[in-house]
Amino acid sequence: MIPHLDRAREPALRARLDAQAKPPGALGRIEDLAVQLALISGSERPKADKAVLMVFAGDHGLTASGVAAYPSSVTQAMVATLLAGRASANAFAAAVGADLLVVDAGVAAELPEHPTLIRAKVAPGTRDASVEPALTPAEVETALGRGVALARAVAKDFDILAMGEMGIGNSASAALILHRLAAAPLQDCVGLGAGHDADGFARKQAVLARAAARSAATAPLDVLAEFGGLEITMMAGAILGAAEAKRPVIIDGFIAGAAALAAVRLSPAVADYCVFAHRSAERGHALMLEALKAKPLLDLDLRLGEGTGALLALPMVRAAARLIADVASLDDVMSGRI
Amino acid sequence: MIPHLDRAREPALRARLDAQAKPPGALGRIEDLAVQLALISGSERPKADKAVLMVFAGDHGLTASGVAAYPSSVTQAMVATLLAGRASANAFAAAVGADLLVVDAGVAAELPEHPTLIRAKVAPGTRDASVEPALTPAEVETALGRGVALARAVAKDFDILAMGEMGIGNSASAALILHRLAAAPLQDCVGLGAGHDADGFARKQAVLARAAARSAATAPLDVLAEFGGLEITMMAGAILGAAEAKRPVIIDGFIAGAAALAAVRLSPAVADYCVFAHRSAERGHALMLEALKAKPLLDLDLRLGEGTGALLALPMVRAAARLIADVASLDDVMSGRI
Repeated sequence: MIPHLDRAREPALRARLDAQAKPPGALGRIEDLAVQLALISGSERPKADKAVLMVFAGDHGLTASGVAAYPSSVTQAMVATLLAGRASANAFAAAVGADLLVVDAGVAAELPEHPTLIRAKVAPGTRDASVEPALTPAEVETALGRGVALARAVAKDFDILAMGEMGIGNSASAALILHRLAAAPLQDCVGLGAGHDADGFARKQAVLARAAARSAATAPLDVLAEFGGLEITMMAGAILGAAEAKRPVIIDGFIAGAAALAAVRLSPAVADYCVFAHRSAERGHALMLEALKAKPLLDLDLRLGEGTGALLALPMVRAAARLIADVASLDDVMSGRI
Repeated sequence: MIPHLDRAREPALRARLDAQAKPPGALGRIEDLAVQLALISGSERPKADKAVLMVFAGDHGLTASGVAAYPSSVTQAMVATLLAGRASANAFAAAVGADLLVVDAGVAAELPEHPTLIRAKVAPGTRDASVEPALTPAEVETALGRGVALARAVAKDFDILAMGEMGIGNSASAALILHRLAAAPLQDCVGLGAGHDADGFARKQAVLARAAARSAATAPLDVLAEFGGLEITMMAGAILGAAEAKRPVIIDGFIAGAAALAAVRLSPAVADYCVFAHRSAERGHALMLEALKAKPLLDLDLRLGEGTGALLALPMVRAAARLIADVASLDDVMSGRI
């Protein structure tokens, strides 16, 4: 069981920040973040240099029913692009100084060996959730377990883990997960995903209504089995593993949010370790953030995924860590001791 | 005269972004920023690696009338802290990978030589603007000219210039500048600055009302002379110089915004080169952003200054530059050419 952060230590950390050479509270959200990092690490000098984005990839049986604006084959093509270093997430990772790992959780194709690819495939895609459960309970367990183990291993080399994804159809899966785990009306959870015209959006809504009608599941493991993507489920495991390893974990947008929501329902204290990167343009994300009691750092009209939003939030996490660690106290400044 | 960006080139740049391996427009504000950077640099591969924060420092005669919550001597102490690498801006600069230069525009003390200090003092602080003009027209001209020259020189070594400041009392000066250059009621322009109790805030409002009653100036050079800080005026010059040198210039918060507003009133096209970092918690900043027709990137309840907000926006500028330069086209991805 992951323990909640020890909030009894917060007043001392706030006092440290308030004594620094700046007006108390003048760095707003960055000070809150600094407190969170110190509580996670158990140190007034939290480390935040080495960061990695884990991009979990998987395919979705739901695409057979036409929930997505792009064909399923785009998942594999985009994984190849990520491995070649030519996707948006690579550009952002280079800009902010983060490593990038791609995790094959369930891509419907055999992927070649690659130094930045982690081969953790549970199955070559999910089943069509509008017809039958997307995953078996055993597949859910395997995906979660591999996610936990991966994050634990990665946490040995990195101070911060960021979570992103690639999977055509996964905004449909995430919408169903949100619908059930937040007990929200389905129509409020379904958005345009990577892009739909009116017809495509109506089709997505109809297919998801069929999927939702097929099962009354509300328990997190059941919801993941009925509706879940392999990349979402493995990411939920990785979020659990990151929290267990006492690492801050940056959650990207709507899909990563669905994984975080599942992780938080499985182990509520996980939320203490999460940094929610941004408010996505995807409909349903505001509702999801509410269900997570999360106040994201950024609001930049992003709706790409791949972890791009998480990467943009990373420098803020680093700034917060440096703030609490390095800034002089006002006493030292005014007495000339610095 | 600084030319406006050539918006005729925008459709081709948008088409390039839309053809990339992502849904068109899916990176929201970062795509807008990418277009701006490409237009500024005249290249589809804008450079954004080497960045510097210039922290302009100066003292304010207005502090003699009690507009500030801290004594004027704090300016010098904080400059020493910035030079020692122990201020919040140093922590953030280290976190995001930016150089930091301190510019003595008008600190009321003799500062020692230091490798990151630029000695450009025009006078040891301004006069008390509630009693007489803060600066002479000659001092305004000198400060502006030094700012332009400094930015030109710095632009030779850096791809991006970020603007910040340190100066006890400068939110009072900035409020007066906003009041006149945006033709906004004074009471809407005055905020708590670095922190005031009710008495302190009432005093600040009364002193600024006296200052405003003393002069009817509305022309930018006159407004800078009547109410302006030396750091604000030199920063306005630096913003002009950065735009002239075709560098994106990141504007921090309320005080840097006053400098940007003065620069834009002197040469309207300068706004095309500005990236507005964040919406500050300082009252009056929303009004200022409106006067600048600016939509800032971040909203993190910051109210420190020193360029801290500008530094947090820097990674977004770098991400935008990498995006337009490096990401593969969807055609190349789907045909396997990457």
